[in-house]
Amino acid sequence: MQEALRVVIVGGVACGPKTASRLKRLLPSCEVTMIDKGRQVSYGACGLPYYVEGVFPDVDMLMQTPVGVTRNANFFRKVKGFHTLTRTEAIEIDRQEKTVRVRQLDSGAEEHLPYDRLVLATGSRPIQPPIPGLDLKNVWYMRQPEDAETLVNEIDANGLRKAVLIGAGYIGVEMAEALRRRGLSVTMVEMFDQIMPQFLDPEMAMLAAKHLRQKGVELALGEKVLSIEGNGRVASVRTDKGTIAADLVLVGAGVRPNDELARNAGIACAPKGGILINHYCQTSDPDIYAGGDCVVNHYVDPITRAPLFVPLGSTSNKHGRAIADDIAGRPHPFVGITGTGVCKAFDYTLGRTGLTEKQARELDPEIESVIWAGPDLPHYMPQSKPVVIKMVASRRSRKLLGAQVVGPGVADKRLDVGAASLYFGATVDDVANLDLGYAPPFGPPIDPIATAAHVLANKLEGIAKSVSPLEAKRRIDRGDDFIFLDVRTPDEFRALRLPYDNVIHIPLGALRDKAGALPKDRDILAFCKISMRGYEAQLILNAMGFQRVWFVEGGLVAWPFELAENG
Amino acid sequence: MQEALRVVIVGGVACGPKTASRLKRLLPSCEVTMIDKGRQVSYGACGLPYYVEGVFPDVDMLMQTPVGVTRNANFFRKVKGFHTLTRTEAIEIDRQEKTVRVRQLDSGAEEHLPYDRLVLATGSRPIQPPIPGLDLKNVWYMRQPEDAETLVNEIDANGLRKAVLIGAGYIGVEMAEALRRRGLSVTMVEMFDQIMPQFLDPEMAMLAAKHLRQKGVELALGEKVLSIEGNGRVASVRTDKGTIAADLVLVGAGVRPNDELARNAGIACAPKGGILINHYCQTSDPDIYAGGDCVVNHYVDPITRAPLFVPLGSTSNKHGRAIADDIAGRPHPFVGITGTGVCKAFDYTLGRTGLTEKQARELDPEIESVIWAGPDLPHYMPQSKPVVIKMVASRRSRKLLGAQVVGPGVADKRLDVGAASLYFGATVDDVANLDLGYAPPFGPPIDPIATAAHVLANKLEGIAKSVSPLEAKRRIDRGDDFIFLDVRTPDEFRALRLPYDNVIHIPLGALRDKAGALPKDRDILAFCKISMRGYEAQLILNAMGFQRVWFVEGGLVAWPFELAENG
Repeated sequence: MQEALRVVIVGGVACGPKTASRLKRLLPSCEVTMIDKGRQVSYGACGLPYYVEGVFPDVDMLMQTPVGVTRNANFFRKVKGFHTLTRTEAIEIDRQEKTVRVRQLDSGAEEHLPYDRLVLATGSRPIQPPIPGLDLKNVWYMRQPEDAETLVNEIDANGLRKAVLIGAGYIGVEMAEALRRRGLSVTMVEMFDQIMPQFLDPEMAMLAAKHLRQKGVELALGEKVLSIEGNGRVASVRTDKGTIAADLVLVGAGVRPNDELARNAGIACAPKGGILINHYCQTSDPDIYAGGDCVVNHYVDPITRAPLFVPLGSTSNKHGRAIADDIAGRPHPFVGITGTGVCKAFDYTLGRTGLTEKQARELDPEIESVIWAGPDLPHYMPQSKPVVIKMVASRRSRKLLGAQVVGPGVADKRLDVGAASLYFGATVDDVANLDLGYAPPFGPPIDPIATAAHVLANKLEGIAKSVSPLEAKRRIDRGDDFIFLDVRTPDEFRALRLPYDNVIHIPLGALRDKAGALPKDRDILAFCKISMRGYEAQLILNAMGFQRVWFVEGGLVAWPFELAENG
Repeated sequence: MQEALRVVIVGGVACGPKTASRLKRLLPSCEVTMIDKGRQVSYGACGLPYYVEGVFPDVDMLMQTPVGVTRNANFFRKVKGFHTLTRTEAIEIDRQEKTVRVRQLDSGAEEHLPYDRLVLATGSRPIQPPIPGLDLKNVWYMRQPEDAETLVNEIDANGLRKAVLIGAGYIGVEMAEALRRRGLSVTMVEMFDQIMPQFLDPEMAMLAAKHLRQKGVELALGEKVLSIEGNGRVASVRTDKGTIAADLVLVGAGVRPNDELARNAGIACAPKGGILINHYCQTSDPDIYAGGDCVVNHYVDPITRAPLFVPLGSTSNKHGRAIADDIAGRPHPFVGITGTGVCKAFDYTLGRTGLTEKQARELDPEIESVIWAGPDLPHYMPQSKPVVIKMVASRRSRKLLGAQVVGPGVADKRLDVGAASLYFGATVDDVANLDLGYAPPFGPPIDPIATAAHVLANKLEGIAKSVSPLEAKRRIDRGDDFIFLDVRTPDEFRALRLPYDNVIHIPLGALRDKAGALPKDRDILAFCKISMRGYEAQLILNAMGFQRVWFVEGGLVAWPFELAENG
């Protein structure tokens, strides 16, 4: 009689339980043991900010199935049919003997677990910035349910009021909202001069930052934290620019893959960290698999197949499935990610898929990009709201390289369409031609992502000529001699304007008649609310012999700087 | 000096103005004349039900730009630079002379407009069912702004209360909601035995129908209208099953392409109607283009490139762009559609992309399908709501052939991802591997469309074995000897149940212990709320030697028949 295949899984949060569950479904005969250092397994860590915000009442819901059954060792044994050892740490892998030495953390007892296949799903841990004071009371990371629980308890019990968040990435932005909604003051300190520096290009980040400020979040950008000060507990945060009073500090400075167990066993890892895997999630030892936050992913596109460290629960689940399928003898490759991420920031959705303009330029200098703004629904639908989309493409191949979304309108849908397009190697023309669902409650007849693709295609062909808001602002700041041509209606112009002296206002409908008043020997930057009329103005003026005309991408909606209201 | 290119466009609603505007942007020198029979041009006809519902106050908004400028002849001349002739009908094309004979409808004056390129954007017209009474007062079609305006005026002025809608397609469903929200009683009469027969498979249509009934819409399915009765104005609708009192009738029996102008000029048309075009929207006469509702589209997939008549504003706009690009000497092919449609029905979203199961079976008997139900967000997010997804794929190639969505959860996003996937020829494995945006406010870590793809892949590989709700109900109705195995928790079981005698309740967690009580010689159909646990039950029982186990797809959430509550 054949012996049962023994599979040991190290790590029980996302990739681990997914691998174990799927494997038991495919190969009921195999013996699966999942171990984890923590007391709790299989929790939705991404839900922690929403527990802090008060969106749901009980942090245990993150460890429960939708019908309230806790996903613990008993559940996994009874329902999924595998063994779970909590409070158990993997110390060392013996690849010759095919055993893992594990230690029960409460008793200190050690044993050697034999395996036929080993799965490393060891996750990641928060990066600790090299500053003093991290050991003070009321300094939090946001990784496990108990982090969120103790944070909420301390806020309630001791009336914490002043939060400083170190780092303005995903977790910082989500926690800023959560803490503001709990009534705390919030200051985010970010070393880079924009929020979400790994995630969004500057103009998009500036729009998001404007919204955060409107919601009462203080942003200290381009500011470096030197220390956390306090007597036993946090009292302030000292930066290179000053001191910020604080009774609560949240560190969101990114995460680092837990690859030491693999590294110490001689398994290939990336120099910057992260276990290297193939498309079946096998490591350099074919009997050892790895998935989740501890591995390095690959960008899906065959040309730019760069390694990417993007730790996300969605990807961890895909890894788990690929690992189980391969162990069960039903290999399905997982070809890679497009680096898609999305984040709610108060009333805004922030999202990115593929490469930012900055990342794309490093790979290929021949790229083109555009920022587009417009409504997510037909204008006559009262719930219509703006979305801003940035799109980056290759000049050579017309292939989409990345898309970013920011705004109060429905942006996650457009992001997912962009993500799917990237996965399939779409050109901007493909994106424009997608047959997306159209009805007034869901979108305009030409979807925002398609319109953005149109404008980018028009730029690639030299029909549309434009400058980004940042470029326009740079010209203002340099004192360049040019004209801002506002082609909106008189009513619009009265309500809201660019606050500069070089603005000339000619409504689009009058432009063919009045263009004679404009100079042909100066640069003209045309714009409107979203710059669709700005683009028309460029073409009308071009047809009338004006050569030096561009439109300002995204118009006033995508303008991240100050505007003059009401006169 | 070269003469300006003369372009005449027949039809001014969607494809026409799009062609004209784009063409003037690309080729400012050309002379564009757009003619239309109506008084109004360039209106958003899809918005009419929302005006009737009272979502926005002024029907003129459908003819305005977002800043309230009316898109009329003056606007098109001043802003877009082309000529518009309203109340002008195209009577005849002389392809030798390259002229169109047109008649000014108010004066009766005729002239011959010369063209270098002619564009036919003549749209479609409502199908008039062959029944008496269509000429009575208070019978409406819903095609133009004045239809919606007169309908609303009559309801308000004369207190119309009882609406009968003939046809349960898109327009019927949208108008049912609009009229219910205005307080009218609504009966929909549909010849087929389901709503949206061209659009959804029966199980999906039944779920939608259940919701419509909950919202107070009476459905008379499988019922044929024989006549509309009344003395001058509508009093009732007579069907083959009885008489329905009515003071308002809305006919939504589909539309027919206006291809007569082309047909009479000897331009190739489909036998069933619709002008035939190539990928550049050229007709059989290369100087004559056609686009919008008057043409036949092609399905995008190269294998099933069947002709499709799917008239939609979104596609009309794509045609307009393709036509303008080709005339301007910048050809970009428009390769086809995937037949995507979406529709709001009260709190539900109904959508379809690609082929229904029925359509797919006609092309390929070797298909597989699945119905999946689940939450649109992680269960701990209080705004989480269910979506039901049906997916159809080829057994041979694993290619996705179609997807349908129904439910109160966010379904349009998943539909658009499905539509993009179809456009690119995705397999179900591709759909499962898409790197979609994940954060708790936007979706679960494995998106519903990916989970549906997983289940379908599991079916294709014989791991998951399931029956559709319709098949399970058929077995009940036939009196087959089988067991319904409900594996939900006791609390769930107490609240809501399948109302049949053959239901056995064993919570999933107890199944491994209690399975001994189940017979191995009878079919077992396992289910839970959404049948994820039902699937687990199938696998657990399979591993214990039970061969005759299937799960009921979509569980109670996708069960379109009666349930027993609280009993």
